[in-house]
This record gives sequence, structure tokens and C-alpha cells, in this order.
Amino acid sequence: MALSDLAADDLDRLESALASEYETLASRGLSLDLTRGKPAPEQLDLSERLLSLPGEGDHLAGGTDVRNYGGGAGLPELRSIFAELLGVDADRLVAQDNASLSIMYDLLTFAMLFGTPDSGRPWKDEPQLRWLCPVPGYDRHFAVTQAMGIEMVPVPLGEDGPDMDEVERLVAEDPSIRGMWAVPIFSNPTGAVYTDHTVSRLARMATAAPDFRIIWDNAYVVHTLTEDFPKVPDVDSIAEEAGHPNRFLQVCSTSKITFAGAGVSFLSASRENLDWYLGHMSVRSIGPNKVNQLAHARFFGDAAGVRDLMQEHRKVIAPKFEAAAAALSRRLGEYDVATWTRPDGGYFIDLEVPDGTATETVRLAGDVGVALTPAGSAYPYGEDPGDRHIRLAPTLPPLAEIEAAMDVVGLCALLAACRAARR
Amino acid sequence: MALSDLAADDLDRLESALASEYETLASRGLSLDLTRGKPAPEQLDLSERLLSLPGEGDHLAGGTDVRNYGGGAGLPELRSIFAELLGVDADRLVAQDNASLSIMYDLLTFAMLFGTPDSGRPWKDEPQLRWLCPVPGYDRHFAVTQAMGIEMVPVPLGEDGPDMDEVERLVAEDPSIRGMWAVPIFSNPTGAVYTDHTVSRLARMATAAPDFRIIWDNAYVVHTLTEDFPKVPDVDSIAEEAGHPNRFLQVCSTSKITFAGAGVSFLSASRENLDWYLGHMSVRSIGPNKVNQLAHARFFGDAAGVRDLMQEHRKVIAPKFEAAAAALSRRLGEYDVATWTRPDGGYFIDLEVPDGTATETVRLAGDVGVALTPAGSAYPYGEDPGDRHIRLAPTLPPLAEIEAAMDVVGLCALLAACRAARR
Repeated sequence: MALSDLAADDLDRLESALASEYETLASRGLSLDLTRGKPAPEQLDLSERLLSLPGEGDHLAGGTDVRNYGGGAGLPELRSIFAELLGVDADRLVAQDNASLSIMYDLLTFAMLFGTPDSGRPWKDEPQLRWLCPVPGYDRHFAVTQAMGIEMVPVPLGEDGPDMDEVERLVAEDPSIRGMWAVPIFSNPTGAVYTDHTVSRLARMATAAPDFRIIWDNAYVVHTLTEDFPKVPDVDSIAEEAGHPNRFLQVCSTSKITFAGAGVSFLSASRENLDWYLGHMSVRSIGPNKVNQLAHARFFGDAAGVRDLMQEHRKVIAPKFEAAAAALSRRLGEYDVATWTRPDGGYFIDLEVPDGTATETVRLAGDVGVALTPAGSAYPYGEDPGDRHIRLAPTLPPLAEIEAAMDVVGLCALLAACRAARR
Repeated sequence: MALSDLAADDLDRLESALASEYETLASRGLSLDLTRGKPAPEQLDLSERLLSLPGEGDHLAGGTDVRNYGGGAGLPELRSIFAELLGVDADRLVAQDNASLSIMYDLLTFAMLFGTPDSGRPWKDEPQLRWLCPVPGYDRHFAVTQAMGIEMVPVPLGEDGPDMDEVERLVAEDPSIRGMWAVPIFSNPTGAVYTDHTVSRLARMATAAPDFRIIWDNAYVVHTLTEDFPKVPDVDSIAEEAGHPNRFLQVCSTSKITFAGAGVSFLSASRENLDWYLGHMSVRSIGPNKVNQLAHARFFGDAAGVRDLMQEHRKVIAPKFEAAAAALSRRLGEYDVATWTRPDGGYFIDLEVPDGTATETVRLAGDVGVALTPAGSAYPYGEDPGDRHIRLAPTLPPLAEIEAAMDVVGLCALLAACRAARR
């Protein structure tokens, strides 16, 4: 029976039973962590061979000595593999060091200090800068725009992507809105995949700012939880046809393909955007780590090698997502008090609890040893106006811990919901 | 006999003979390159074993899985090695990715966008920013300050370091001077080593700007051309005693120890400076490439391992410096028209030719197939007011090519000097 249909004394009895169970939990001394989207050791083991690559004697790539300086755009051998995965021309994609977050940070830094190719002046000289943030979204994105002093404007993210009516309205009327964050495939944290129609509207829409940019973070582009891989739209071609060739700045990385923190990252964009980025980067660096890029090229072999590896990842983590959903369902299903996403890919589950109970759920879980990402972290400035969303990251802990931790999360969410309903 | 003592007809005869020899050279179709300070393949071969490190199964460093996210300050195992080489505490040194140039760029970016811990406001909001540039100096340093729109003020670099009377006078009176570039050991390009007295004056001097910073680029700290290693001053301790604890930002890297472009870099500074840097970096990245850091720690073993490796480098490149000096001496010695540095370490020779002939010398050499760094590149904005300095980089080409190329350089310098003397 739905929680909202329970009579007052039934609600009392339920709360009392849950509270008692919760007290028992407190004595168990749990220490479980669902906070960050980190790969599990078994996933990292899949790429263990990389630790010995490229290997002694293997330091040439098409005549380039990867041990020496140069080659700011990255190794063609590696770029061609990811160009195929992203469905773009290899000359429209550059390979960089280990973090796409750093590429995104630098893109905004360059825009702040120097302006984009379409800007009248550096963004730092603008009286006001705003940025659209589909919510719930990725906390590290929001931290970058916040650091830069760019005011963040939330827009709701649905199953098909952001609320496009709202996006179109905002960008058309407000020239201070200079861009937007997007995780178009298996979005962090809901798992939403932007539809073709959404992508088309983003490419076509008129913006008051001439230098409007969408940072298109394809962090989970091959991170499937099924046997299939998502279709990847060629956003630059779509935007070029729509007359906005410089609109998209697409990034991705191998952080959750090979090694988190020791992989390689990529930027795909229009020629003008790439020349702008590489021009500024050439002052910052004499080139990325080509040894690591060659190691990755040797390890993958080709695009099929990447897809095969991602299927091995799936075998490790899909059962964790299933176990998490099952545990939530057992605890919460019959009471109809919460919803949670069942993504086809990516690294997260978005648990949506009754209004005003997310913070309390996270507190309750933390107090019995289950660490969750702070409620609100999926929102700019950490402010979830409904206090409803909790981001759950089930990849890192072992399967048994996932089941135990998710059971606790379900219990805490239900307990918080009961108490809220009684008030 | 010195060129300046030659009678007019002797000068004519000399010029005529040199011109004839130059014409012969033109027909030889040379293609030699002395432009950049890049390691030679034999030097890179010394670290070939790194290409297989850390090796399968070796991914733990003191309990940290180097394959996963985190650890923004870098691996302690590696930091302790370079802390010993720099003579600093390991907790005052952080290890980053492959380019110290990137650390320097980011330091200035953070100062521009956010200000330093001692700044009243972000540097971007200051009406005027100036920066001291000892000359001749490093072109990539100058490119960074130029990109940021910071006005560069040259100060002469002598054998003991920059002209300290001039430095002290400028920083005391002009609050818009926010910092200074320095390559204190085996300076690029002259090979000068700052004396203890210079270091002390830099640490002690009063500056009108409260947030004055010296970017202390110890790029060649162990890059000796002799059996000895230079003494490394602990600048942070000296500055702290002088009441200016945040004055120095010291960087170095293994770009010319292991692999250029695939090494590791370091920042050593006061606790307050490091916290400031790491705080901003934590928004830009979830951490550096710890796999590469572990590989380097395994490869070096300890600080003695680094020193041993540098002696192997010396065996490869010291003969090239000797051959270069000998070739210049043969061509130019008797005429007393030019001077060149004979550094005890580093990567460059600074050739100083008669006033107004550096550009012509570079042009003449280029026209017969010997590429040199453009005259003026060792000066801010590429402007050497005397047109006297030519930076020669003898490490990359094979020994035989160094001899051939330096002979051409000597010939061209002498020919340009003759022609200038006849005018």
C-alpha cells in the first residue's frame, strides 16, 4: 500500500518498526561508500596490461618519437580510434592528457582571459556571465563555472534531455547566457540520453550571445550497461548545417575505460574552435604525454577493442546496478514513495525521494556508516530546491556491499518519508 | 688579428673569401637544426625501461591504487626523491603531470582569475601588470606573460644572476610589478648560475607589490655538464626568514631527465602557496597521472638514481658542447668579434655577436640550411635591442652535425661582422 494511503496509526507502526531496525543497523558498525563514480578494482584490472605498455623498444608512432617534445594535437594513431567511436573526422579531434575535466576548465579559462573566436572581448570583461545547467547534473561541472564567477541557471533535465522550451526561451532573450553544460549520453546522474530531436533543437536554436557554447561532455559515450552501444550524434555537422559551426565543444576520456586519472582525454570541435584551443594550449604546454597515448593505442588496437573492453566492464558493473535496483525495490516498492532511475549506461542512479527528505535520508544513512553524496550536490551551489535528489554511485564497492548499502539507503529514505508524512 | 684592427683592404679580402666559402656551402644542401633544446634519441634511450613501467601487477603505492582517481598532490614515493634533490621537505613539494610549463601557466592563470593569497583582488582587475624578465631568457616564459597581457620589463642577466641593483630599484618603486621569471641554475640560454648573494637579495628585497612572486624555474637543477652537481638553495626557507614566505614558486620537471613531454613535473612552495594552487587545481582535475609517477619512482629508485642518470646524459651531450665551442673557436677566435658561453650545465650556448648582426647571422645560416632560433627570441616580444644574441641548442643533433652546423654558424657570424665593419 502506498505510504500516502496509510492510516495514521499504520504510519506510526511502520515508522516505529523502521526506527527499531535502524537502531539495530547503528550497532553493526558499517562503513560503506556510495559517494563517487569510481571504477572498481576489478574494472581497473581489465586494463592491467597497460602498465607495461607501450613497452621497451616501442617508442615510434608513424615516425614520431613519442618520448620527445611536440605534437600538441596528440597521436594520430589514438585519435583515429576515438574519432570512429565519436563518429567524427580524426582531424576534428585532439588527444590530450588524463582528464577531460581539465580540458573543460581550460576552455572556460581561455574564454575568460581571451574570449572565444566569436566573442567581442574576453569574458572576464563582461558585466555578467550566466550558464545553463541541466539539473540534476554533475557537481564537478558546476564547481568549474562557480569558480569562474559565472552565474548558474538551472533548467530541468528530463528523460529526453533538458527542457528545450525553457532552454530556447532563456538563450534567445538573455545575451549574458554564454553556454550550457551537457552530458548527452547516460547523463550524470539520471542516465538520460538526449534524443535526436533535443540535439537538433540545441544545434538550431537562436542565441542572444554570439559566442554561446555547449560543453558536450560525452563522459559515458561507450559506457553501456546493455549489449548495445548508444548512437552518437555528430553534433559539429548538425550545428554547422544549422549555421552555428562553433556551438559544441565535445569532450570525452578513457578515465572510466582504462585508468581513472591515468587515461587520455579528447576534445572534438569545429576547426576554428580547435585552432583557438590549440593556440592557447601551445603557450601552456609543448604537448601532451604521447607515451601514454601510444600505450593506449597499442592496448585498444582499434575502436572494436574499446567496445569489447566496455562489454567486460559491463559484466562487472551491470550486476551492481541490478542489485541496487532490487534492494531499493524491496524496501521502497510497495510504498510508492520514491523513484529511481534504471539507466542503460553510465555510472549513477538518481534516487528521488519525497519533497524535503533527501538531506535527512543522507544524514540517516551517514550516521549508520553509509556515505552518500551530499543531498543537493547534483544542483548548482548544492541547492536542490525540492530537496529530493540523491545521487548513488554503485560501481566501486563489491556486489555484497552494494546490496547492504542500498538496503540501508532504502530504509533511511522510507524512515525519512514516514516522519515527513506524520508532520 | 682582431677584426677591428684589420685594414680596409684586408677586411675586403676576408669578406670576399668568406663569401666564396659561403656560396660553396649553399650548394651542399645542408639541413641542420639547432633551434630547440630537445634531448637526443641516445638520451631518451637511457630511460627506455620506463616504457614498461610500473609493469603489470605493480599498481599499489603505499596502499594507494595508482590506477584510480585522487591524490592531487602526487605520489609521496616520487615526491620524496625530488624533495631530496631540491633540498626541501617532501610536504612542501607536489608532483603533477608532464610539463612544468603548464604549472607555471596555471599559476599565472589562477593569479589572473582569482588573485594570490597576498592579493587584494584578482590580477585581471588591476589596471596595469608588469613582470621582470632577466635577459637573455627563455622564450616560452615570455610567451606566457605576453599571452596574459602582462607587460614585460627586461633586466640584464649577468654571470651571477640578474642585475640586482636594477631589480631592487624597480620592485621597490613600482607596485604594478607583480613578479619575475628566473632560471636560477644553468639559465636558459646563458648557463648563468645565480649566486647565494643574488638569491639572498631576491629573498630579502622590499617590493611595492604585496603579492610579488618569483617563478623559480629550476628546469636544469641536476642537468650538469661536469662531474659535480650544483648546490640548490632552499629558497622558501631563505624567503621565510626574510619575512617573505610566499615569494618563490619553484618548479622543475623530468622532461630532460627521462622523456620530454612524458615525464613528471613538480611545484615546491610555501604551505600557503601550495594550498592555494592545489585548491584551484582540485577544480581543474581529480588528480595527476599517478601511474606515470609510480613508473618514475620505480625507475629512479632514489635521488642517487637521478644523479646517476644525469651523469649518463652528460656523457652524451658534454662532447657536443665541447665540439660546438671548438668549432666556434676555430672560426671566430682569432678575430675577437664574438663571445659565447661555456656552461657547466643546461641545454644552451648563448652566442653574442657584434651589434646589429644577430638577425643577419641567423638569416645567412638559414639560407644554407642551418636552422637557428630567431634572433631576439631570448628577449621579451622578440626584441633584442642590440641585435646581438643567438641561442644555440646543441643537444639534439648527432655530434658530426653539431660540428658542421657550428662551423656554418661561425662562418655566418664572421661574414655578417665583416660586412657590418665595412659599412
